[in-house]
Amino acid sequence: MPGEHMAAEMAQQPGVLRALAGRRSRVATEVRAAVPAPPAGVILVARGSSDHAAVYGRYALELAVRRPVCLAAPSLFTLYGGDVACEGWLAVAVSQSGATPEIVGVFERLRAAGATGVAVTNDADSPLADAGDAVVDLDAGEELAVPATKTFTASVAAFAILAEALADGDWRAGDWQALPDQVAAVVDDPGPARRVAADLADAAGLVTVGRGFLYGVALEAALKLKETTSILAHGYSSADLRHGPIAVVEREFPVLAFTSSGRAAADMAELVGQLAGRGARVHRVGDGAGATLGLPAGLSEPLAALPATVRAQQVAHALAVRLGLDPDAPEGLTKVTYTR
Amino acid sequence: MPGEHMAAEMAQQPGVLRALAGRRSRVATEVRAAVPAPPAGVILVARGSSDHAAVYGRYALELAVRRPVCLAAPSLFTLYGGDVACEGWLAVAVSQSGATPEIVGVFERLRAAGATGVAVTNDADSPLADAGDAVVDLDAGEELAVPATKTFTASVAAFAILAEALADGDWRAGDWQALPDQVAAVVDDPGPARRVAADLADAAGLVTVGRGFLYGVALEAALKLKETTSILAHGYSSADLRHGPIAVVEREFPVLAFTSSGRAAADMAELVGQLAGRGARVHRVGDGAGATLGLPAGLSEPLAALPATVRAQQVAHALAVRLGLDPDAPEGLTKVTYTR
Repeated sequence: MPGEHMAAEMAQQPGVLRALAGRRSRVATEVRAAVPAPPAGVILVARGSSDHAAVYGRYALELAVRRPVCLAAPSLFTLYGGDVACEGWLAVAVSQSGATPEIVGVFERLRAAGATGVAVTNDADSPLADAGDAVVDLDAGEELAVPATKTFTASVAAFAILAEALADGDWRAGDWQALPDQVAAVVDDPGPARRVAADLADAAGLVTVGRGFLYGVALEAALKLKETTSILAHGYSSADLRHGPIAVVEREFPVLAFTSSGRAAADMAELVGQLAGRGARVHRVGDGAGATLGLPAGLSEPLAALPATVRAQQVAHALAVRLGLDPDAPEGLTKVTYTR
Repeated sequence: MPGEHMAAEMAQQPGVLRALAGRRSRVATEVRAAVPAPPAGVILVARGSSDHAAVYGRYALELAVRRPVCLAAPSLFTLYGGDVACEGWLAVAVSQSGATPEIVGVFERLRAAGATGVAVTNDADSPLADAGDAVVDLDAGEELAVPATKTFTASVAAFAILAEALADGDWRAGDWQALPDQVAAVVDDPGPARRVAADLADAAGLVTVGRGFLYGVALEAALKLKETTSILAHGYSSADLRHGPIAVVEREFPVLAFTSSGRAAADMAELVGQLAGRGARVHRVGDGAGATLGLPAGLSEPLAALPATVRAQQVAHALAVRLGLDPDAPEGLTKVTYTR
């Protein structure tokens, strides 16, 4: 059946997250033993979906560790012979396969330049895991669908766990106990995504938007939709969208807006109003009244990213199936991508 | 006449760049006196077109200064009450108006947290300039068109000048003497962009792609096209495009590929072949045979970003005019954007 692997892997997310949440204190102990406190700065190394998890990780780690967080530009190392001094820094590399040569290579270069390395991967025997001073094993089971789902949400959770482990103060992601059931409640409610997919069936393009902890989710939502349906979906932060790209949002243009209670809520509410004023068809992922794609109430802003991501996965899966495509195996894409 | 300000401001670029190149050693002296050598790390603060200049600056500064470079996430400061320690760091903020409260606010927070601040702005009397330990005055003259053109290329040049000034070694951007005439040669050759605009007239979407020093140019090209024509243009690095988004490139889908001689050339050539294999209509900006939008030969990779940007501006302007739009004043956009 088209999309059966992706659907099965989406359904495994509550279990994967429950297991990861259960290993939180063990991971924290290993990471705290390896990483200098505080690090001089943090560098994240990733591509594709893992890079969107890193965008989330950037917010969590910068708030928790209180040191600037950089997203690495791999080509500086692989093409330009770049050479940075980073004694006392923390480098976190994310790759579900742990085998992408570009990511492993950059991670090794940063470690050789003085950084302590934490590997986040779904294969604890991979070259990436071997290269780390500490490893966060996602242990999500093999992922057969090309679009990453359970490895993405597990990577996001890994960043939240790392941030709590390394927090310079009392930063907490939220209620880990409640999370798996909240994610399961969304997994068990595919109807709203089917209705949104019906609305998107004729759309040429789509904008996804979020801010703060939900910015990486908006980026990942756009990628899932592009991968599974080839729709021209692009993800923005609300602030970046206002700085020019909002010009593409004409009358009837569909927008998927990720909102949650918390610090970014007022800004997102203002943006949703602005988009409605342009005549956009806004589908809101969030808790509270008026959300087309509901989320459980009471989620903390950092952990709301996880059920919000499942909403995006559901829309991508439902739209692909509706269009007669197989979301498991998008044309011309492979599970591990090789880049120079 | 629709687009007259944008056209006039594009035509002023050789003069603006000549003047900036002439002030290089004065800027370098001021910046070297203010900035610790070497800084512990570098943080760039910008939005919109200025943020795309910062993406360029990230490559130039990380290679030259040999310290990690981060692009700030302003919401961490403006919404989340973030608080980073950055003694010994360099913060570079870019804003053509120098008046965007979000950018000025984050810059001031980073300086209060210990960073040395360099302001890059087109208004030397602006709040941003006032807040800097050193200022790079773009001195590009007032920009009346909403889409930034001359202030963007001037900001890119400012980053190349900063990188040379702070280089830990002999990093050089290229031949500044030759640059203004090379940019003028492109400005004086609008025909190729008109032909590409004719090809794009019916396109619903477009992908722009570059790598390394041309990645920021690809992002800016997509933004110019979105602002002036509302076309669904998305910019990618070649590596990111391969990690999933390439799925949107179906038969006859138009791509604007930014290439230049240098370290990213082989990777981009491989990508162009891959895109052609998918049946894409690839328009290549570059030197050498086969480029639809030619660049002068002999440009260094860092400085090639400037005439390459002019090619993108020409396409955006020509396509808007062809579609009966006024590129000077896109609907619903303003010159200074306010965000929380």
